[in-house]
Amino acid sequence: MNLIKKYYTPSNTPLGEGGGEGGRAKKSVSVLSPATVANVVCGFDILGFALNNPNDEVTISLSDEVGVQIINQDDFDLPTDPEKNVSGAALLAMLEECPDVKGFTLISKKHIKPGSGIGSSAASAAGPVVAANYLLGNRFSKEDLVRFAMFGEKVASGVKHADNIAPAIYGGVTLIRSIFPLDIIAIDAPELYVTVVHPQIEVRTADARKILKQNILLKDAIKQWGNIAGLVAGLIKHDYELIGRSLEDVIIEPVRSILIPGFNEVKSKCKEAGALGGGISGSGPSIFMLSKDEATAKAVEKEMSNIYERIGLDYQTHLTTINQEGVKLVSS
Amino acid sequence: MNLIKKYYTPSNTPLGEGGGEGGRAKKSVSVLSPATVANVVCGFDILGFALNNPNDEVTISLSDEVGVQIINQDDFDLPTDPEKNVSGAALLAMLEECPDVKGFTLISKKHIKPGSGIGSSAASAAGPVVAANYLLGNRFSKEDLVRFAMFGEKVASGVKHADNIAPAIYGGVTLIRSIFPLDIIAIDAPELYVTVVHPQIEVRTADARKILKQNILLKDAIKQWGNIAGLVAGLIKHDYELIGRSLEDVIIEPVRSILIPGFNEVKSKCKEAGALGGGISGSGPSIFMLSKDEATAKAVEKEMSNIYERIGLDYQTHLTTINQEGVKLVSS
Repeated sequence: MNLIKKYYTPSNTPLGEGGGEGGRAKKSVSVLSPATVANVVCGFDILGFALNNPNDEVTISLSDEVGVQIINQDDFDLPTDPEKNVSGAALLAMLEECPDVKGFTLISKKHIKPGSGIGSSAASAAGPVVAANYLLGNRFSKEDLVRFAMFGEKVASGVKHADNIAPAIYGGVTLIRSIFPLDIIAIDAPELYVTVVHPQIEVRTADARKILKQNILLKDAIKQWGNIAGLVAGLIKHDYELIGRSLEDVIIEPVRSILIPGFNEVKSKCKEAGALGGGISGSGPSIFMLSKDEATAKAVEKEMSNIYERIGLDYQTHLTTINQEGVKLVSS
Repeated sequence: MNLIKKYYTPSNTPLGEGGGEGGRAKKSVSVLSPATVANVVCGFDILGFALNNPNDEVTISLSDEVGVQIINQDDFDLPTDPEKNVSGAALLAMLEECPDVKGFTLISKKHIKPGSGIGSSAASAAGPVVAANYLLGNRFSKEDLVRFAMFGEKVASGVKHADNIAPAIYGGVTLIRSIFPLDIIAIDAPELYVTVVHPQIEVRTADARKILKQNILLKDAIKQWGNIAGLVAGLIKHDYELIGRSLEDVIIEPVRSILIPGFNEVKSKCKEAGALGGGISGSGPSIFMLSKDEATAKAVEKEMSNIYERIGLDYQTHLTTINQEGVKLVSS
């Protein structure tokens, strides 16, 4: 369940400087870049958390060629033109602030399916910039890395948003109070089990954005900010009941859930099975549920499977926990 | 500055039962009912806190007459018909759940000016029900008392809202995640100094509600819920900088502040003087500012005075701290 714990991750170890191996150009760094859940029901565009599973594998090395060279080692057929590639766009943004660096070579092996709603593009954007930063001796702050990675998100969805990227880079639960200027706040959450089901239909982030109403009722907004305030308080106070009560979305979910077959049934059955609550992961189609313990999370996974077996839709489930460290070094 | 600290307040002392003074009918209870700041910039309708100053004085005794008898000992000329009186309506709601009690006599001496925006009606509603509950042996929970007091708020503004009543009864900073069903969450805040200026113009709560737009932009709502999430996180984490950054309101303040002469100048000058931030208290016209220390709060008070002296508008200021206990017993 938890691939990451196999690896030892030295935190804040500057790499690529003083390594004594004859200069940076010969080195490469591999990282695991995690899936993430954004929006988190009532936290549309401002809240997200990282998962311990699944992860993309990313290897970066310095190159003598100018720009970014992309080698895809998976079956997703993603573009290799760096300006059209999520990882490429993020690395190009970083390169602009590195006049001493010519370029990078990126080997990408994705395990997080694009379009699944668990931050596939954020993993593509975050992993490479964290890995490249290791190579360059950690010269950039995490906030800088979020800034670079947002250029990747813009390629994916047309919008610079940070609610997947911030948790992918910082780990844990992160609040993005503001994007311009960037203001990321770590929210210390209690232990939570996360069950995700990905019904195998495609919901493009850009489409999921398009169907949202640009005007909403003030009274609905008040409910929503009551819930997000309750959720943040519940997380920091480690109050599971309050977390559960606050996982309510009166604005986005009623619109987007119609794109996801079985959504209402998944939600009600999983709550009956003991989940604290949950909803659409990112812009869908994945649905996530939070549970207090592993046994409940497994019962929730069973409910999800039963529903999509009956509907006859292909699906995939993940049962995992919150990844507290974000993108992780696996070798250098 | 802090009138309340003169009095010893036994917490959770059941009164009116076993007091050995020959039955409840002869007893009376006096309380101080505090001013409160609701909305708190980005927490419209869901957040509020209690002040240590000013307070209303309320005395309640059991009566052999059916219903509520109101004696006003101040110059505000408030109605004495209990159904039209904020305190009366709250006490009548309580009486409905007390088949063993005939009625109450209420003596009210208000110091919080009606229409000032610092919870005058909430103080009128909260004080009497807390005092009456003491008389009846604390048979009701705080949540029950909020429920009764909201009937008073309905008389005042036509709407049952709890963002002044909850802090008046619970003390401290309170989040009202939901009104139906009632869900009140205590937010543990760091030490904060509060400076309030009340420019002596009338803004009726009902009018201040009427000018609000019923539809708002989703993008503004997202900013607002980012800020309320940041404010709650900042309060619980005792992060003054984050509290300051989060005190931003893009929805209500731009509309309501036009009713308050000098608002923009007060805000900018007070922040220059070191205030963390602030804005309209309740529906105005009072303006509150939060500061980290007393010296700053005094400098803020000076700025406020200078501005209204220059404008030539009568005003009153209060420099106080957050009242952690809510309505307080002063004698019985």
